[in-house]
Parts: sequence; structure tokens; C-alpha cells
Amino acid sequence: MSASPVKIGLCGLGTVGSGVVDIFQASAKLIAKRAAVPVELAHIGARRDRPGCDTSAYRVSRDIFEVATDPDIDVVVELIGGTTVARDLVVAALEAGKHVVTANKALIAEHGNELAALAESKGLALRYEAAVAGGIPVIKALRESLAGNRISSVAGIINGTGNFILTEMSSAGRSFDDVLAEAQALGYAEADPTFDVDGTDAAHKLVILASLAFGIPLAIDGAFTEGINVIEPADLRYAEELGYRIKHLGIARRVGDRVDLRVHPTLIPSDSQIANVNGVLNTVMINADAVGEVVLVGPGAGALPTASSVMGDVVDLARLLGRGQSDPIPVMGVPQSDVASLPAVPREQVESAWYVRLRVEDRPGVMADITRLLSAEGISIESLIQRPPKAGSSEVDVVVLTDNASTGQLDRAWLAIEALPAVKVAAGRYRVEEFKGE
Amino acid sequence: MSASPVKIGLCGLGTVGSGVVDIFQASAKLIAKRAAVPVELAHIGARRDRPGCDTSAYRVSRDIFEVATDPDIDVVVELIGGTTVARDLVVAALEAGKHVVTANKALIAEHGNELAALAESKGLALRYEAAVAGGIPVIKALRESLAGNRISSVAGIINGTGNFILTEMSSAGRSFDDVLAEAQALGYAEADPTFDVDGTDAAHKLVILASLAFGIPLAIDGAFTEGINVIEPADLRYAEELGYRIKHLGIARRVGDRVDLRVHPTLIPSDSQIANVNGVLNTVMINADAVGEVVLVGPGAGALPTASSVMGDVVDLARLLGRGQSDPIPVMGVPQSDVASLPAVPREQVESAWYVRLRVEDRPGVMADITRLLSAEGISIESLIQRPPKAGSSEVDVVVLTDNASTGQLDRAWLAIEALPAVKVAAGRYRVEEFKGE
Repeated sequence: MSASPVKIGLCGLGTVGSGVVDIFQASAKLIAKRAAVPVELAHIGARRDRPGCDTSAYRVSRDIFEVATDPDIDVVVELIGGTTVARDLVVAALEAGKHVVTANKALIAEHGNELAALAESKGLALRYEAAVAGGIPVIKALRESLAGNRISSVAGIINGTGNFILTEMSSAGRSFDDVLAEAQALGYAEADPTFDVDGTDAAHKLVILASLAFGIPLAIDGAFTEGINVIEPADLRYAEELGYRIKHLGIARRVGDRVDLRVHPTLIPSDSQIANVNGVLNTVMINADAVGEVVLVGPGAGALPTASSVMGDVVDLARLLGRGQSDPIPVMGVPQSDVASLPAVPREQVESAWYVRLRVEDRPGVMADITRLLSAEGISIESLIQRPPKAGSSEVDVVVLTDNASTGQLDRAWLAIEALPAVKVAAGRYRVEEFKGE
Repeated sequence: MSASPVKIGLCGLGTVGSGVVDIFQASAKLIAKRAAVPVELAHIGARRDRPGCDTSAYRVSRDIFEVATDPDIDVVVELIGGTTVARDLVVAALEAGKHVVTANKALIAEHGNELAALAESKGLALRYEAAVAGGIPVIKALRESLAGNRISSVAGIINGTGNFILTEMSSAGRSFDDVLAEAQALGYAEADPTFDVDGTDAAHKLVILASLAFGIPLAIDGAFTEGINVIEPADLRYAEELGYRIKHLGIARRVGDRVDLRVHPTLIPSDSQIANVNGVLNTVMINADAVGEVVLVGPGAGALPTASSVMGDVVDLARLLGRGQSDPIPVMGVPQSDVASLPAVPREQVESAWYVRLRVEDRPGVMADITRLLSAEGISIESLIQRPPKAGSSEVDVVVLTDNASTGQLDRAWLAIEALPAVKVAAGRYRVEEFKGE
């Protein structure tokens, strides 16, 4: 171990940043053995101290850009989040010749094309294992392990906060607001949880997975996105009754020479493995021509699991830098010059089975009207629930599970059904997918 | 892509070897993009042609050592299996300055210390992702992704053939011999299936996982090993009745400064994720201080899944060699000079719950004797099954699930119970573990 230490600059002392400090404090010796070179946390940039995180042994700057341009630093770890200052910081670090490790999915999804091109033009690494699925090594699986495969789909539960909320709502019958408050207290959800509940966070991650899987540019507007904030407790109950659970899935499929990217609540069979991935756990299922299906499960959020992925990237780079070598792996799996767009499958053509929930007047002929309108669009009914009205009410819930139908078919039937005078609320429609996760 | 091609020499055209040829034929262009350099299958060594595997486009030698010493070749892929000629071949390749990729668990488990030392002394790579759990990227997860973690346990189903046989015996009530014959026809089991059924194959893999997890030398005699050939159909039925399934698990745990390595049939709760990993699927659960638990599931055998892992290693090396770089990752996760033994937990101290099956005379007092002898060793009974005798028989099955007890306690009670005159067959005893796999 004669090589001089590899020096790490850490920007951001939030949840994940403090986890990185914890790992350095707990495991520096072990990490030095594995990297075959000492790896030193040499400079921390943070606007303020973090209670409970002892940084007295380190050089600390209040200006994170001092870390990015510190001539002593080899690798800058960006953990400040957001896409404005974080982007400037990563650009500054790359311009200053530093390798970069980040956990920032929004940054990679929105500015990754530009940042990857900059990193590759300078022969520098831009690593982001922690940006998708927390502690699960899915970036490495796609970018390295499966490099001999043509990937046909990547799908999974890729937002830990959302899965935690759905699990609690479903198993404990708790309200959305109540569970969200707990998720924030546990450090899973951001202070502003908008991206977790409206699907944006999962879309960021899906776009990264799709880019790696299919060699396409990062394009955040390429994914159809629906969040968990549209799900009502009644949907969770009816789904369970029909033998399904509702999970918030990201799905990226290659269909011929086109791609289908979407993030939405999805009914999946209750007895499938993925339906039982609960709480803050994430899972990613990869289908590919040689390997078949590989499924990864692990914590999708939290300080230490996410920091574990950050440190995996740091050790990868330290092993290279300790020998004076550069990162041999293209940022997005293929060199930027080989990244090529594929057209999207038009949304109206995307097929699946569907769950439809309506609130209708309890009078003869209503069910006949609904089934006729579905049938007129060529949509078959797989199963149907109708409950007697509650005491004092003249309205009933009607829940329909359909066979496979395109989004176009379903949209047209939905419009016609909504227009029926007896239909009071067209409450929700979700896709049903037969993912097994095994 | 101006770099000259990285040239691969393939030794062995069995199931996995033909899978590697298939991948080169299907995906050479894609692999060249990902590696940022052409990767060329330049020389095949095989004693004979393989029906259905077209090698007419390649240079083929009947003497595999011609591949190992071919001055044109950068990376030798060893897929001949066994530990004698394979060892000589890998030594010859390393001596000739070639990097080596292998799928051979027996070779790594039995000669890995020596081969790793030789590879590291020459600055060459020795990669073996395909040696454990087929298409699941578990070597990379342990050696790279989790490099910032202290690993506390690695456990899983790591023999695809064995899991296929157990699954079929359990779900279809088929006989061991019948299912084994099918596994051989499907190409999962070797012509000589001894290692698959007596636990040796799983022990080889466990020893590799434990070495990576704990930084200890490879030591095949360090693992307690029991195969699936001891399981009777009655055990599968009784386990199911008690809410468990029997799976063949490899378990490596760090207990303080000692390690516990074992491979044996294990009862796990029927509703756990791992109990539902069926057929030729494998699963590996890794527990570590930072990440918590990560679970990987995928095909544990078969031509293309195993070839997928071989190609992952090949692309990793091609990316490095295309830039004139060496493999920065120590063969066993830490440099050989840092590999250090840890003592084993004495077997009599290893604790777990137990499943015990006896065949006893159907007469008063027998159950009292059995429960007294368990109690005398401090072993509590968790549940118990006794069936009425079949017509014409005077013997009954007694099945006991115990609470936690050490192997020493159970061994002493077992000896005393076996000595009871009423006990006709002390049929089996298996550990019960509460693995969840999630």
C-alpha cells in the first residue's frame, strides 16, 4: 500500500452525506484494504453543521465550490440534491479535472447527457449508482454485468417513499397524509415530497435505467408519469379483493425498434414476489436475451443504504486512481457518440389489462350500459365487483377488470362511460400487469 | 473505436462454451459499442465439435493449450471444468501473460488461493463471475458494489440443479431419480451429478462467497456440507404441513471474529420470498452494516445465463485492455497479502431450531420418552406431528420442531433417542432458519 491516498471531497451533509461520513469513520481500514490504497475523506463542503455528525476531524468549507476546485481532491461526491447549484458544482468539478460521484437522479435525468459528454471529453468518471434504487447495485448490473445482453425490459418499484406510503395505506388502512408525515420523520421523504408522490422521482430513475438498458439519450419527457397521489384507499381494498396489490411501478420496455417508458400505479397479482416487496424496499427486474430475468431487491432509501452505493463508486474509482488509471466504463454504458434515440411507442397503442372504478346510481340498466360501451370498443370484461349501496345512499361502486386493451380503446370507452348520466364519479383506472418478479 | 480488437480465446465447448459462442454471434456489434473496442472471439480450443454450435468462422484447435499460449490472445476463457487439466490450463495462460475468465467453481474453491497469487504477481486478471449463481452478478456485488460494507452474512440457494430437483419433488411429488434424469436432459445437471446432489457444488460456491465477504482464504474443508440426497419425500410433506419448505441453502455468517460456513437442507417459512425461489432459479441474500439486506434472484444454471456472466467479465476486461489498463480489482476482493484466516465457530456451538423425524413403535410411553430426552438436553418443543399408524402397521411417524438449540445439544438428544428400543428409524434432522429473503 505504497500509493498515495485517494482524496475524496464531499459536498452536502444531508441524510446521505452524513451516511458517507459514518462509513468513512467506521470502515476506513477495511476500505483501504479493498481499494489497495488509502481512501481519505479530505474535504467536506456544507452550508452548516449537521447535528450528530462529527466533522471535527475533517477540513470543512461553507462554500461547496471550494471543495470542487480544491487541488488536493481527486473525487468530488455531490450530495446536495437539486438541479441548479448541483449542476454548476458538477460542471465546476469536472472542469477542474475531478472525477464525480453523485446520488442525484434529477441531475442525471435532466442534465446527464451534457454532463456525460463533458466527463468523457475530459477522460473523467461520472458515477451515479446511488441515484437509482438506493442500496441496490442496479446501475452496475446494467452497465457492467449484463454488458453481453440485449435488454428487453427493466421494471420495478423504484421509489422507496412511495412504496412505504402505499404499503402502510394498504396493510394498516392508514391515510395518505398520516403515512407521508411518518415517512418524512423517518428521513425517507424529502421536506418537499412532491417528486415522491407525483411520480417525478420514479420517472427520473426510470429514464436513467432506460438509457442504460437501451443506449438511448436521457429524456425526462419521454416517460408517461402518474404518481401515487391519485390512489384512493378504496382502490387498494378492491384490488386486494380481486387478488391484486397496487404498486407504483416504473416500466421501460423495448418493443421492436421502439421504447415504452411509463411510471404509474399498477395492479399486480398479490402472490407475486414483487407484490410482497414492501415498505421502503425497492426492486428492479431486468429481462434480457442471454440471462433471462434477474431480480434485485434491497433498501431504496435511507442514509446508510444510499451511502453504501456512493462508497461502491468511490472504491471503484480509488482502485483505478491508485494505479494511475482512468474509468474505463462509458458514463451511460456506451460512449456518448454511440448513444442513439429510439422512437416511443405511441401511448394510445400501449396494451394492458385495466382496472376501472366508477361510482354510479343504483338503478336498473346502468351495468348494461357500462358493459355495452366497453364491448363497443372491443374490450372484454375479466371480472366485476358491484356492492349493494350503503344505508341511506343511492350510489354504488362498480369495479371492472378488463382483458388486454390498448390505451386508445380504454380512453374512448372511458369518455363514453363518463358521459352516462348514471355515472356520478369515474373514479380511477389503472393498468394491470402480470409481473412475477421471479 | 480506433483501438485494436481485444482477442478472446475460448477453451471448452460444452453447455456454457456454446452459450458464449452464441452471444458473440448474436451481439458482437453491441458488445463492441459497450466495450468501446471490438471484442473478437479469435481462437477456440475444444477436443471435438459440438453439434449445433457453428465454429466455422473461428480458428479452432483440438489442443486447448494452444489457445492458452497463443501470442495473439489477450483473454483466455476457461470453460472445460474439473480441477486438474483446468488448473494446468489457467496456470499456463497466466504464465503466458493472458488474463483469465472462468466459470469453474471447483477450480476457484480448490486452487483459487494459488491462482489468485499467481495472477496478482503477474498483474493479470482472474475473473469468475459465472462460477457462482449462474447469471446473478453476485461476485461483482460483493467484490465491488458493497466494498464500503462490513458483510455479516451471505446465504442462499446456490445450486440450480438441486433446487430444480427439490422443487419438482416438492410440488409434483416426483421421485428424486426421475427429476434428476430430467435435469440432466435439460442440461442443468452434469453427466456425473454427484457434486450437485451431495452438496459439494454448493460448498464450492459458498467458500468463494465467504472468501469475498470476509476476506478469508478459500478453504473447501471449512464448510459443513450435506446434500439433497438425504431428503425423503416424507420430509417435504411434513415440512409443508408445518408451514415450511425445504431448500438446500449455503450459509456463511460472521459471528464476532469467527465464521460459520455450512451447506445443508434447511426448513424455511413457506411464505418467505426465498421459499418461493423455485426450479433452476438461485438467490443470494447479503447482509451488511451499511446496506442492510440486498437480495439477488436469477437463473442459477443454463447455457446462456452462465455465458451472460462470462461475457460480463469479458467486457469488463475489454474496457480496460482497450485503454491499455490492468484489472484494478484484487482477485478475492482484497490483495492476497491482506487475506487472513478467521477461526470457524465450532460445529457443536452452531444454534438453530430443528426439524426431527422419527419412525417409532405405536405404543404408550414412547412420546413421553422422546420429549423427556429432548427436555433433558434443554431443548423445547415448538410443535409436533404424530399420525395414526397405517392399516396393518404398528409404526408411526413422529415429527418434532424444536426451539433454538445448539448442534451439541441436538446431537446428544439424538443419540439418546436413537437408543430407545421403540425408535425404529431416526430418519432425519434438519435445521430450521427464519430467512425471509426480503
